[in-house]
Amino acid sequence: MSEIEALIKAINNFRDERNWRQYHNPKDLAISISLEASELLENFQWKNSELALEVNSENIAEEIADVLIYSLMLCSDLDLDVTQIIEEKLKKNTQKYPVGNE
Amino acid sequence: MSEIEALIKAINNFRDERNWRQYHNPKDLAISISLEASELLENFQWKNSELALEVNSENIAEEIADVLIYSLMLCSDLDLDVTQIIEEKLKKNTQKYPVGNE
Amino acid sequence: MSEIEALIKAINNFRDERNWRQYHNPKDLAISISLEASELLENFQWKNSELALEVNSENIAEEIADVLIYSLMLCSDLDLDVTQIIEEKLKKNTQKYPVGNE
Amino acid sequence: MSEIEALIKAINNFRDERNWRQYHNPKDLAISISLEASELLENFQWKNSELALEVNSENIAEEIADVLIYSLMLCSDLDLDVTQIIEEKLKKNTQKYPVGNE
Repeated sequence: MSEIEALIKAINNFRDERNWRQYHNPKDLAISISLEASELLENFQWKNSELALEVNSENIAEEIADVLIYSLMLCSDLDLDVTQIIEEKLKKNTQKYPVGNE
Repeated sequence: MSEIEALIKAINNFRDERNWRQYHNPKDLAISISLEASELLENFQWKNSELALEVNSENIAEEIADVLIYSLMLCSDLDLDVTQIIEEKLKKNTQKYPVGNE
Repeated sequence: MSEIEALIKAINNFRDERNWRQYHNPKDLAISISLEASELLENFQWKNSELALEVNSENIAEEIADVLIYSLMLCSDLDLDVTQIIEEKLKKNTQKYPVGNE
Repeated sequence: MSEIEALIKAINNFRDERNWRQYHNPKDLAISISLEASELLENFQWKNSELALEVNSENIAEEIADVLIYSLMLCSDLDLDVTQIIEEKLKKNTQKYPVGNE
């Protein structure tokens, strides 16, 4: 099992043990990713990056983890291969922003 | 190199080839994760999950990829181990929500 | 008719002429406020306030207007008095953050 | 003084009494609008509109108020006339979405 597959398995075990998959429709998972991204951003409100990292580094790591956890859940539920969608998006971005034109 | 390390390497190559790392302070990366999460959510605006997936499945995959790409960038810049922060957050959630108490 | 009532009337006329009220359930209006807030924030991505205002001031005004329009719609649909909820929230904040304790 | 001018005056009094205007640069105010919009949306996470209103109606009103308060602050700081930007956006939307073409 790959590293990402192992993470998805752990995440799915967590929600299955609590019978939470019934709530996890894709629309509410997309809402959840957005809410966790805001909780991450809240650590930087009224602060520059340096100060935010000085006082909030632990919560910053936790909120990035929450964004990743919900994103991996949604990939799992939509049968999306994480490595594949990232590689395809990078390829698309490479065509959209050719090197040397920045 | 692990699967996640290889993805981070590809992402870092992409931004280094364009000399974009100068813009990527953690505060603006957190803003970017939030913006991409909103672009993902926009696919579900005024629609239930079924209709959204029927008409927007390609863009949904791309926007999840964008959320993941910026999240992996931020992990790279903050020297956070992706697997470790996810496992620690799952462990914390396990203690917060004990099985059988839902 | 008060100034705010006149704005809400104009907003409701706009959506009624297009028969859009059928889509405007509170959950999707809350999603829409969040999406418009992100479009506002996008004007500040990778920029400090000064540069953002220099290059994006027109779009900034339009996106603030969109946030306000959807917020007034939601107030209208939930029978919330705009002035009253703002005054009550300021009163609550005044108690939460007493002057001289900052 | 108009209704909206009176609200903006109350909001500005609140922040001036606490000497908070020093933190209120436009970029962080845009972040704050986005964070409050997410706190509003959180009331609808895992719920349909009816259930959300049944259990969270008080917090929903407070979070809409917070979105409006930060939006009015930003209008005040950028010297934007609230009624004017809303009327201009409605006019633009009217041209973009002609009646009868929906």
